Amino acid sequence: MTPMNRRILLASRPQGAVAPDNFKIEQVPLAPLAEGQFRVRNHYLSVDPYMRGRMNDVKSYAEPLALGDVMTGGTVGEVVESKHGGFAVGDKVTGVFGWQDYGTSDGAGVRKIDDTLVPATAYLGVAGMPGVTAWYGLNKIIAPRAGQTVVVSAASGAVGSVVGQLAKLAGCRAVGIAGGAEKCRYVVEALGFDACVDYKAGNLYRDLKAATPNGVDGYFENVGGEVFDATLARMNPFGRIALCGMIAGYDGQPVPLKQPSIILTMRLLVQGFIVTEHLALWPEALGTLVALVAQKKLRYRESIVEGLERAPEALMGLLQGKNFGKQIVKIA
Amino acid sequence: MTPMNRRILLASRPQGAVAPDNFKIEQVPLAPLAEGQFRVRNHYLSVDPYMRGRMNDVKSYAEPLALGDVMTGGTVGEVVESKHGGFAVGDKVTGVFGWQDYGTSDGAGVRKIDDTLVPATAYLGVAGMPGVTAWYGLNKIIAPRAGQTVVVSAASGAVGSVVGQLAKLAGCRAVGIAGGAEKCRYVVEALGFDACVDYKAGNLYRDLKAATPNGVDGYFENVGGEVFDATLARMNPFGRIALCGMIAGYDGQPVPLKQPSIILTMRLLVQGFIVTEHLALWPEALGTLVALVAQKKLRYRESIVEGLERAPEALMGLLQGKNFGKQIVKIA
Repeated sequence: MTPMNRRILLASRPQGAVAPDNFKIEQVPLAPLAEGQFRVRNHYLSVDPYMRGRMNDVKSYAEPLALGDVMTGGTVGEVVESKHGGFAVGDKVTGVFGWQDYGTSDGAGVRKIDDTLVPATAYLGVAGMPGVTAWYGLNKIIAPRAGQTVVVSAASGAVGSVVGQLAKLAGCRAVGIAGGAEKCRYVVEALGFDACVDYKAGNLYRDLKAATPNGVDGYFENVGGEVFDATLARMNPFGRIALCGMIAGYDGQPVPLKQPSIILTMRLLVQGFIVTEHLALWPEALGTLVALVAQKKLRYRESIVEGLERAPEALMGLLQGKNFGKQIVKIA
Repeated sequence: MTPMNRRILLASRPQGAVAPDNFKIEQVPLAPLAEGQFRVRNHYLSVDPYMRGRMNDVKSYAEPLALGDVMTGGTVGEVVESKHGGFAVGDKVTGVFGWQDYGTSDGAGVRKIDDTLVPATAYLGVAGMPGVTAWYGLNKIIAPRAGQTVVVSAASGAVGSVVGQLAKLAGCRAVGIAGGAEKCRYVVEALGFDACVDYKAGNLYRDLKAATPNGVDGYFENVGGEVFDATLARMNPFGRIALCGMIAGYDGQPVPLKQPSIILTMRLLVQGFIVTEHLALWPEALGTLVALVAQKKLRYRESIVEGLERAPEALMGLLQGKNFGKQIVKIA
């Protein structure tokens, strides 16, 4: 019996918000391995905001997915079949195998993981792409000194939670922005941020001002829109802004920045970045992150839904801010 | 008879556009020099966009002027009286002596100039603060490689004209944006830019696209507003934007940036800067600029009005884009 592979395709491009009919699930037989290839059974799929951008047909940092392509995504899993000298059956690996049961690879972009050091799912979050994103933006763009104030939006999320904890470890005042009292409580009480501002409470600028009495020296931006406007107005001279996400604009509506002149008057640095363009730094970043997780100095929270078929639901929830912690789909 | 000093004060803060009654001219007797001081007869006053910002009472990179303060401004002139060992009567100097006939100094911030190498007024423009501004933004922020495309707004102005010429000398494609056919013709024919887009012609984005067939790698922003929006939409990945001026917002109205998400998707660097915060680099910059002017490799144009009493008119004209070339007031 030929083994079958379930996979989820981009069926149509979203008009505004992502909808269930933008996806299609299908089941196809697996092709036999060629020499130099190996097959991975995907166990967990990472669900991330960038996926929304890939569903559009517009010029961006990554080629858009074509209609009919398997949805892209980072995964962890186990090698179940191999004709590759470097990967053996039983190896635990992480790679970008997408929204499907099985992936096939020649090894490019696949890393072995040690799930005895930290749990496998951590390699999709705090010790994976989101963690390295946080590490890069904080250390290579914001580069804060002890005593400075660092603000991060989407603070309870996979990236934001790491940004604030790394800032605290660097001796900074860490202030989060998140949606809702529960997330804010988590950010302060479980993650150890100095403060967290609930942007849904209706007094964003006033509350942020109260939480940043000495202004803001570094800002890690995951959101855009009014949160960006409010934080920009709190920046100190020579502040640095790591621009990582603009989730509010992913549905295509323009989200203006109200007072860009502050970038000039405060002599700010604003740097957009994509962590996959800085692969040379990943080993250093991952070494640090895995060690901190193993030492319990870096905490994280996951939101795991069961079943590949629920991946669209997980992405839609993420884009609406419904998840709480790193969004993961358990495939097997 | 005590010598008298005419000076122009900030009489009131502008409500919107600068108006004549925001200024007051008065004549006061000169105080005797103290030991260690010298007196300068101001010959020329530089008129620059930053002056508008100093007239507001808002948090910015410089302390606002107080009501009743002498209007600030760079000058060139000649030492006419000295109790200072380093400055002798007859020395030609440049400093920030403001809108008045005479300045008094202990030497801080005053440089001697050689007006046999290049004319004295050049030290207020191409070989002064505007020139160094261009040099810094181009070399230290944009840092273009030969063959790349550099765009500069307010291209016929004191800063913009130097940016484009330095970019050409660095082997780049230099594209200006200016207001009106006459300025654009000057930018291309007299200054040697590859192209110049007339933003008043009504097809800004289309014309800019045609002038930048390979996209834009470096952008020197002197203006803000729709010019910023249009150029941002033409940026190549990893482009650099030196943010030097946002003249459109100086009257207080907010000028939003329509698509800040491009900074992320194109992984751009945006850096606001103020050239007076990089004084350590001035000698290197000025050495280069004076040499290029003396060799006729750097061209410039001046717009000189006669009479200190006409400085308000010169500033208002500058802010309305009426000047053509570096705006200067001849005081004596």
